[in-house]
Amino acid sequence: MSVENIQIGLLGLGTVGRGVYRIITGNADNIKRKVGVGVEIKKILEKDTSKLRDLNIDLGKQTTEIEDIIDDPEIKIVVEVLGGIEPTMNYVTRALEGGKSVVTANKDMIAAHGKQLFALSEANQTDLLFEASVAGGIPIIRPLKQCLAANRITQIIGIINGTTNYMLTKMTEQGSDFEDVLREAQAKGYAEADPTADIEGYDAARKLAILASIAFNSRIVLDDVYVEGITKITSTDIAYAGELNYIVKLLAIAKETGDGIEVRVHPALIPHSHPLAMVNDVYNAIYVTGDAVGDTMFYGRGAGEMPTASAVVADVMDAARNLLHNVPGIISCTCYENKPVKDMGATEVKYYVRLNVTDKPGVLASIAYVFGDKEVSLASVLQKHNDGNNAEIVLVTHKVREKNMQEALETIKQLSSVNAIANIIRVEGE
Amino acid sequence: MSVENIQIGLLGLGTVGRGVYRIITGNADNIKRKVGVGVEIKKILEKDTSKLRDLNIDLGKQTTEIEDIIDDPEIKIVVEVLGGIEPTMNYVTRALEGGKSVVTANKDMIAAHGKQLFALSEANQTDLLFEASVAGGIPIIRPLKQCLAANRITQIIGIINGTTNYMLTKMTEQGSDFEDVLREAQAKGYAEADPTADIEGYDAARKLAILASIAFNSRIVLDDVYVEGITKITSTDIAYAGELNYIVKLLAIAKETGDGIEVRVHPALIPHSHPLAMVNDVYNAIYVTGDAVGDTMFYGRGAGEMPTASAVVADVMDAARNLLHNVPGIISCTCYENKPVKDMGATEVKYYVRLNVTDKPGVLASIAYVFGDKEVSLASVLQKHNDGNNAEIVLVTHKVREKNMQEALETIKQLSSVNAIANIIRVEGE
Repeated sequence: MSVENIQIGLLGLGTVGRGVYRIITGNADNIKRKVGVGVEIKKILEKDTSKLRDLNIDLGKQTTEIEDIIDDPEIKIVVEVLGGIEPTMNYVTRALEGGKSVVTANKDMIAAHGKQLFALSEANQTDLLFEASVAGGIPIIRPLKQCLAANRITQIIGIINGTTNYMLTKMTEQGSDFEDVLREAQAKGYAEADPTADIEGYDAARKLAILASIAFNSRIVLDDVYVEGITKITSTDIAYAGELNYIVKLLAIAKETGDGIEVRVHPALIPHSHPLAMVNDVYNAIYVTGDAVGDTMFYGRGAGEMPTASAVVADVMDAARNLLHNVPGIISCTCYENKPVKDMGATEVKYYVRLNVTDKPGVLASIAYVFGDKEVSLASVLQKHNDGNNAEIVLVTHKVREKNMQEALETIKQLSSVNAIANIIRVEGE
Repeated sequence: MSVENIQIGLLGLGTVGRGVYRIITGNADNIKRKVGVGVEIKKILEKDTSKLRDLNIDLGKQTTEIEDIIDDPEIKIVVEVLGGIEPTMNYVTRALEGGKSVVTANKDMIAAHGKQLFALSEANQTDLLFEASVAGGIPIIRPLKQCLAANRITQIIGIINGTTNYMLTKMTEQGSDFEDVLREAQAKGYAEADPTADIEGYDAARKLAILASIAFNSRIVLDDVYVEGITKITSTDIAYAGELNYIVKLLAIAKETGDGIEVRVHPALIPHSHPLAMVNDVYNAIYVTGDAVGDTMFYGRGAGEMPTASAVVADVMDAARNLLHNVPGIISCTCYENKPVKDMGATEVKYYVRLNVTDKPGVLASIAYVFGDKEVSLASVLQKHNDGNNAEIVLVTHKVREKNMQEALETIKQLSSVNAIANIIRVEGE
C-alpha cells in the first residue's frame, strides 16, 4: 500500500465520534510518525449537520447514506461509534464483507454478536478492533490479548460501570440513600433517564462477557452471566460493611475453576486493603490474575468523550499500521476453546447477611444452628440494637456453596424470632 | 515462513530464564493457538549444567558458545535474560545484525544503549522488544506504544522499584528504621547484598529513562535523570507525613512541561487518597496521564521469576507472530523528537521540611519570614515539642521553584534558633 493517508469512514458524530475527530485531526502529525502513514476522515455518517458545523468540519464529508462509506474503495477503515444493535450490525457486517477494517466502541454489539463478527473479520482478513467497548480509555483488551498472552488467566474482577461506582462512592462518602444518589447522578449526566442497564448490572455484564471471552479463550455471552444490580444496597449496609473493614462495590467477576467458568455481576463487599477499594467515583478498574504474572490492575476512566476516543484512535492506529504492512487481522479472535459455564448454585463465596430479629435470648443460637446445619460457617458477627424489642444481626460467613446458603436462608426466614432478612451481599477479594 | 515451530536461542538460565523456559514449555499449546505458530527453545547459553538438569532439559540444548546461537540460521528469536552490559551488548548487537529478533529484560542495556540498539534493529528490520525491562510483569511498554498512542502523554509517576517500596511499606507499617528494614529485605532476598542501585534510586532512574523516552517520543538517558535515594528517610518523617495525610514513596516522575521534560527520581509524600498510595510491599505501579485518556494506572508485580517471564514470553509471542507474517519490526522506535530536559532548579514542586529548632518565641516567625522573602508560601505547619528546650517544626509548602527553595533553606540554616534542617522531602500527586 502506498504511503498516502489511509482513509476512514466515521459512523456517528456523537460524543465519542466528536472525540475521535478531535484526536485524529489535532494529533495528526504524531499519529503519522508513530504509524508510518497518516490517517484521515473522508466521510462521516451523520444526519445532524450542526454536529459537523460545531467542529468546523467541511460539510462535503457529511453523508446520510451508508453506501457512501461501504462502497467507497478508498475507505479502508470504518470507525463505528453509533452504538446500538441495528442498523449498526448491518453496517459493520457489510464493511467487513467489503474487506474493510472495523474499529468499534460498541459493547452491546460485540457481546451479542461477537462470534459472527469475528468469523466475518477472519474470513475477510480484516481487523475488527474493540478496545473502547470495555472500560473506555483503560487499555485492557490489548493487554489481555498480547501483554498477558503467556498466562493462563485465572480471575478477573472489574469495576466496569462508572455510573454505579459513582453512586456507591457517594453513598459511602455521604451516607446518602440510593434514590437520592441516583437523582444526583442523573442531574450530573452520569446516569441516564432510564438507568436500568447501569443499576441492574446489565452494562457491566456485557463488558464482562467480552473480557471473559478473551481471558479464557472461550465465547461467553450475556446470557451466561449471573446479574444482580445495586438497587437493594442501603446506606445501612454500607455503614456496617465499613465497621467490618469492607467497602461495597458493583463487581464483575470471572473465574476459571476446575468445573467451569464463573461469570457474575453483583454488588460485593471487598476489604479496604484490596487495590479495587480505592477505585472511586466514575473511575473503572480491572483486576486480572494470571498464573505467571500474579495480580495486576488496570485503572482509569471508563467512559467519556476523550477517554473512549483515546481507545478508538489507538485501534485506528493499529488497523492503519496493519494495512500499511498488508497484515490486517494479524491478531484474530482467540476463542478457540469451548469451556462450560459453571452453574451459579455451585459457586462458592463468602456472604454478608443482615437480619432483623426480635431481641431475646437464644436468637443468635437458633440462627447459628441453621447455618451450621447447612455447613455455613461464620467468620464474624455484629449485633446492633435498634430499639428495646428489635435488633439487627450482621453476619459474615466463610466460603460456602451458593446452594447451601440459599437453603439456610429459607429456613432462617421461617424462624419466629427472625422478622426479616434485610439484605444479603457477597464478599469478594479475600 | 512455514508453520513449523519458530526456534529460539535463550541467553541465560537464571531466575528469569527459568521462568521463560517453564512458560514456553508448559503453555506451548496455548501459545501456538494464539500466535498461529509454535515457539521452541533450541539452544540455551548457560555454563551451569545443573540449571538445565533442575528443569529436566535435554543437555543437547546447552551451549557455552554464543556462536552456536548467533550463527544458527534456524534460530529466529534471541531471548536475552543474562543482564549486565557486557558481554550482553556484544551478543545482542550480533543477533540484530544477523537479522534475528531480540527480546530482552535488560533495563541497564536499554537505558544506556537503546538508541544504538533500536537503530540496529530498524536497519535490519527485526523486532527489539523489552516489555520486561520496566516493572516486571506489568504491561506498560506496549500500552504506552500502542494503547495510549493517540495521546500526548503529559506525566508519568511510577513506583518502579520493588525493594525500596517494600522497605518504605515496612517502615510505614512497623515504624521501623531504615537500617533494620534494609537488613530484613536482604534476609528475604528483596534487597541485594550491595543495595546501592535500589536504595540510591539508580534502578528506578534507568526504568524511568526508558518510560520517558517512549512517553515523550524523545530519547532520555540515565544522565538526564535527577536521582535521590531513600537513605535519608526516617520513621519520624513517615509518622509526620501520616499525620498530614501523606504516605512516603520513592517516585519516578517524568513530566512534559512547556519548557522541557522533567525526569526525576526521589522520595516524595503523596496524599493517602492518591491511587499510588495503596501500592505496597514489592508491588509496582505506573500512573500515566494523557491529554485524551486522563489518568490511568498500571499495577502489578515489578520483579520475580514468573512475572518477569510473563512479560518476556508475551514479547516472544509478538516477535513470533511478526515473523510468521513477515513483518518483524512493524512497531519500531518512536523517539522521533528531540526535546530539551528541564534543569532541576527550574522545576516547581511542593516541599515537606522538618526543622530542629530552639523552642523560644519568634522562631516560627523568623523561619516564615525567610520563606516569604524567597516567595515560598506555606500550606501547613505542625509544631512538635521534643523536650523543654528543643522543638520540631514540620512545614509543607505550596508549589515553589526548586532554586528558590534551596536558597531559602541556605538562609534558614544560618538562623541562630535553627539547630538543623532534619529533612526535606518533595510532595507530589496533588
